[in-house]
This record gives sequence, structure tokens and C-alpha cells, in this order.
Amino acid sequence: MTINQDRWLLPAGIEEILPQQARDIERLRRCLLDLFDAWGYDLVIPPFIDYLESLLIGTGSDLDLQTFKLTDQLSGRLLGVRADMTPQVARIDAHQLRREEPTRLCYLGTVLHTRSDGFAGTRSPLQIGADIYGHGGAESDVEILRLLLTTLETAGIGSAYLDLGHVGIFRGLAEQAGLSREQELTLFGILQRKASTELAALLDEAGVEPSEADMLLALVELNGDDALERAGERLAKARDSVHRALGNLRLIAEDLHAWMPQVPVHFDLGELRGYTYKTGVVFAAFAPGWGLEIARGGRYDAIGEFFGHARPAVGFSTDLKGLIELAAPAAEHPLVGAGAVLAPNDRDPGLQALINELRASGRRVLSWLPGQQGHPAALGCEQRIERRDGRWQLVPMVAGQF
Amino acid sequence: MTINQDRWLLPAGIEEILPQQARDIERLRRCLLDLFDAWGYDLVIPPFIDYLESLLIGTGSDLDLQTFKLTDQLSGRLLGVRADMTPQVARIDAHQLRREEPTRLCYLGTVLHTRSDGFAGTRSPLQIGADIYGHGGAESDVEILRLLLTTLETAGIGSAYLDLGHVGIFRGLAEQAGLSREQELTLFGILQRKASTELAALLDEAGVEPSEADMLLALVELNGDDALERAGERLAKARDSVHRALGNLRLIAEDLHAWMPQVPVHFDLGELRGYTYKTGVVFAAFAPGWGLEIARGGRYDAIGEFFGHARPAVGFSTDLKGLIELAAPAAEHPLVGAGAVLAPNDRDPGLQALINELRASGRRVLSWLPGQQGHPAALGCEQRIERRDGRWQLVPMVAGQF
Repeated sequence: MTINQDRWLLPAGIEEILPQQARDIERLRRCLLDLFDAWGYDLVIPPFIDYLESLLIGTGSDLDLQTFKLTDQLSGRLLGVRADMTPQVARIDAHQLRREEPTRLCYLGTVLHTRSDGFAGTRSPLQIGADIYGHGGAESDVEILRLLLTTLETAGIGSAYLDLGHVGIFRGLAEQAGLSREQELTLFGILQRKASTELAALLDEAGVEPSEADMLLALVELNGDDALERAGERLAKARDSVHRALGNLRLIAEDLHAWMPQVPVHFDLGELRGYTYKTGVVFAAFAPGWGLEIARGGRYDAIGEFFGHARPAVGFSTDLKGLIELAAPAAEHPLVGAGAVLAPNDRDPGLQALINELRASGRRVLSWLPGQQGHPAALGCEQRIERRDGRWQLVPMVAGQF
Repeated sequence: MTINQDRWLLPAGIEEILPQQARDIERLRRCLLDLFDAWGYDLVIPPFIDYLESLLIGTGSDLDLQTFKLTDQLSGRLLGVRADMTPQVARIDAHQLRREEPTRLCYLGTVLHTRSDGFAGTRSPLQIGADIYGHGGAESDVEILRLLLTTLETAGIGSAYLDLGHVGIFRGLAEQAGLSREQELTLFGILQRKASTELAALLDEAGVEPSEADMLLALVELNGDDALERAGERLAKARDSVHRALGNLRLIAEDLHAWMPQVPVHFDLGELRGYTYKTGVVFAAFAPGWGLEIARGGRYDAIGEFFGHARPAVGFSTDLKGLIELAAPAAEHPLVGAGAVLAPNDRDPGLQALINELRASGRRVLSWLPGQQGHPAALGCEQRIERRDGRWQLVPMVAGQF
């Protein structure tokens, strides 16, 4: 019977994490939370499940499709398992904290997706991210970008590059062309596939003026290092809001370059991740030789409003498990437990004092369990505690001594 | 419309955790994982969702009722959200690690329950626990009990007491009485409610010999400090396996008392938590003045077999969030971010060097975001960095200076 044979099988895209990798995750987790704390970001822990309508508020249908649904036996209402913590953190800022000051928050936890996506191909990323609420200027965009790059560096990915865009450019051009919300979203979908011919046909069909259609078509090509310069020309006839968006994007890129001149920045004015709820700059980070984005984020000033307290917001998130897989293997990866000490199972106070002292100093001390099988070296034990000349001391483990 | 008004409402028994409590959780989390590591326990991270049949393998119907179910769109199979990580960790030991040596594993993560239970009344406990696989002697039972008590002490609960029982006693008596598996489980349910009259009626109906029925009835009363002594008399006519179970329980209690004489231990031979998959000692810890158990565990030697590698196993688990709520409030609970430093948003290398140094030493440094609202003291800032006499230095924040 198949079911009996594969009891240890895991669902596709779902992982169980063994000691060696769990230790790497725990180590990086602590480093990153300490980093965020030092930069002024307070940790919050959003709930794992939530009413579905809260989870999806102000976000797009992509998130809806990615969200596992559950029925709450207590309320009879539909629950969702979080697929992205950003809306939950925005709710905490808007509804619980309600500060006037800029509020820096960070979060870390498993999210679940109904289908694999993202760079690590998992359905259960360990999402980690940081947001600034309550500041609308380019300085908070740049702080988030710097923190994103420092996060990647801390994870051992030192040579990441950035893709920058700005939803205000497409949105302004779509408004100028007189597109309905529905047409705008259809157009947006085509633009993401960079399907120029299809785009031209749709604009023609919608009766968009040729000069305005040209500008929307130009977005397909406005990418690369010099995209901003070319945009000045190609989008010359755009309305003010488009020029303000271009100016904002230029300001952010220049300021970031001044802080971190070593980081390559590309522009892509047609690539608009999370378009439905983003309102300003959008960005993604990439690692050389890896096609998929490894972190993403942007500005989303509208989401707090849904929770009764409109606040500007900008943030990024990534997958901590994915970063570990991607990072160059650390120079030395000692086995979990290496350097452990084996102690006799004995209540002698002198022995216990020594064990407590070793453990307090960060050493691992295992008790010998009478009759235990195998060899303690397989558990990483390199020394043992023995009573010699009337006192307890550490002596090397000798193979075959047990 | 109601749905619009309560967008920030959370499902019953589901919490969002704000900065102050999140910091306490993170701190205790690190302390406990470091404690477990020092005692030789390797961290593993079981998946959040799993095939339902793997999650429920070898466990009882209680866990089934507590488990949220999902449909996997990829396989069409039924998934469950973990309600208890113990079976998952047993699978990791049996199927992935497959060691001959005793294997110490620990785990920490959110589990979900369809209904509130447990001492903190939540539906999303932060389960933390530790297990020893591959050793069947009383020494591993005692190590787990010592680690459980040390865990509670670390969490600030120093005066816990223990309830000990042993499933071998009831199981042996039920076998001796010739009860069917179904009768045994019915009887077990009645015993948990300590309903003597009902118990007597059922035993009579089942045609159990009076002397054997008396022993089963005695279990209702065999609790308290002297339960083991009384059991010797009341269960004198029990079969060998019952006497072996009593002897094992006595040995564990005596050994634990020798290690930790300050811990009060009570016995309850009729209280059998997790009876369906436990095989030896069962225990729970309580805090004074709090009726519900705050941690539980026991021996479950049979579970590894389901995953192809039979191994003795003993472990405990508790709810980290619950422990924090229960612990006496720490003497000093400084506000999150207290003692932070406010720094100008300036790329000057001398300033950046000072900021990096402060952050590396564990201080929190916030960048001033131009135009930011409110007062930095509300963010915990007590000092700021200012250039005086040509160099950057820390100066006290003065109220109203901004």
C-alpha cells in the first residue's frame, strides 16, 4: 500500500531542516535580527493565520492565489495562512502602534505558498523583512535599500546588484492615455511579459493617441543602466506626475550611489513588482549568475489606510533559507556538535560544577547514558571528563576507549 | 458593513506580538536554544505543513481534532498544519538521521490548534521541546525531566512541581482484566474524568473479576505523594508488567530526587496524558497557583517504528509564549529601544565610522530622517551624535531641542 511506504515523504516544495542547516539558519537569524535592531528596527511577530480578508487587504490577486485557505471552526469564517507578512505588519503599525514618529519594524517567520515560487523554489520560505512607516521622503527609500544590501552582505552575498523602477511612471502614463482601471491592469500584465506587439494592438484598440501610446510602448525598452537618461527624451511629453516619479527615482539612485558606489544599479521602468499596492519606487536584488530575484520591495503608501491610519511605508523582504542556499559555502563548516565533551552520568558536585562551567562558557557537554550504543565520537565528542588524581579534568577522547 | 469595521480583528486565540513582547520572546528563545545546545541537543526544524497521515501517525484522535486541514493543490492530497511537532521530530530521527548513538534533538516553532487549549488559552502556541532517541533506560527519562525543570527555571518559573505517572500500570491492569482494545480506551476515558461509579459499572458489565476490577478502580485514588507506597499494597495481585512499571517509576522518581531534591513530585497513576502513543513514564509540570499544566512529556518508544526505524524515545514540550506570560515580570523591563542614539543622515566617513562602531557594540543607532514627525525621545533616543570642535561625539538629548 503506497501510503504505508511513503510515510516519510514530504509535500513538494516543503522541507524539513536537519541539524547542520538548522544551525546555519539560527546563526544567520540572530545576526540579521541583531543588525535590524542596531539600525532601530523593532521586531514584531504577526500571526500565522488571519481572517482572509485582512491578509489580502489592498493586495492583488496573485497573493490570493498563493494563500492557503482554512475554515475557522470557532467563527465559521474563512482564514488564510499568511503568504506575505507585509500587510500584517502594516496593520500592526496602523492599528496597534499608531505612532506619529517614523516607525521601523522588522519581522521573520515562515510563510506558506500554494505553489512554489521565488528563487529557492520552496513553498515555505522563511520570510525576513524590514519596513519604515511614517516617512515619505527618498531618505527612507535609501535607508531600506542600504539595509537590504547590508542584509545580503551579512548573509554572505556581497556582490548583489539592484533593479530599480517606479510605479508612478506607468500609472501616470496610463492615466494620461485615459485608460480605465481594467485596461490599465490588462496593459500592465502585457507589459510584464514585454510583449510589444500585443501592447501596440491593445493601445490601438483602446483608441489611445499615438504620442501617448508611444510613451507606454517605450516602457518595454526603458531598461538598462542609461534608462533614466533615455526616459527624459522618450517620455518628454508625459504629464507632471510622470516627471516627478522619474525625478524621485533619479534622486534615490543618486543618493544610494553616493552611499554605496560599489553596488551596480540597473533600471527597468516596465518591471513593476507588486504593482497593485505599490505607490513609488519598486526594486529587486539579484545575485550574479542567478536569474531570479533574491529580495524585493518598494514603497506602498496606501496600505495603512485600510486599517484606519494612512502612513507612508517602504520596505523589503527576502527568504532567509534561500539566502543560505545561495551564499558561498562558509570557509569552515564544522559539524554540529564538534568539540563536544562527554561527561559521566554522576551527581558528584565537583563534576557538576565543572559541567556547569563548561556549558556556561558555550561548550557542549553530553551525559553518558549507561548502556548507550555506538561511539561518542559520532556525536562530535572530542574530549571527556575523567577523575584523575582525585579531581575532574578534561582528557582527549581515544578511539576504541569505550 | 461589519467586515470593513473590523479589519484589524484577529481570530479568537490568535495573537499578534508587538515589539516589547517580541523582544522578550526572542531573548528567551535564544537562552533556551543555547541551553539545549550546551546539553547536546541539536536543533531541527520540522515543516509547518505535512501530509495529514504523517502528522497523525501513531497518535490519537485528540490530535486529529486539533489539526487544521488543507488541500494540496499540487498533489490533491490532504495536508495538515502541525498541531504537535513530536511525531515530525521522531520521523527526522528515524528516517533522516538513522543513528545508532543516542540522538538528542530539540525544536521550536509555532503550532496551530483548531480550538484553544493549554495553559495560555491560545490556538497558536510557540512549541519548544527536546527529545532523546535511542536510549531506553531511566537515565534518559531523568535527563529529560532535569532539562524540563531547567527550562522552566530559565524562563523565570523556579518553583514548578511535577506530576508523574506511567502508562504501563493501567495498560498492564487492562490486559490482565482481559479488556478488548475498545473497552480499554473507553475505560481510559472514564478514568481521566475520575468517575468511579461509572468505572465500576463498566467493569461489572464487562464481567471483569472483582479482584482485577478493584485494582483498576484503585487507580482513581492512587495519587498524591505516597501513591507509590499505597500502590504496592493495592496492586499486589497485578501481573509482572505492572510491577515493572511501578519499579521503573520509583527508580525515575528517586533518581530525579537525588538530582533535584528541591522539586516537589506528586504521583497520579490514573492520569495518562497522550496514552495512545506513550509507552512508559508520563509527566506534567505545574506552576503554583496555576491549575493547568505548563509542560508535559513522557516516553513513547513505539513511534519511530512507523517511519521504519524503531527507537526508544522520551521528550517534553512546552509553550514559550505561555511561559513568558506566566513568569514573574522581570525586575526591570526597559522599553524596547531605550538608550538609542539619534544620528544625522550624513555620509561623512567619520560619522559613519562612529555609527558602525556603536552598532557593532550592540547600541541602537537611528538615522534622523529629514522632515520626520514627532520627537525622537518617543523612539527611545537618549543621546544624539553631533559634530563639536571638529569631531563627532555623543551628547545627551535635550527635550524640545528638535
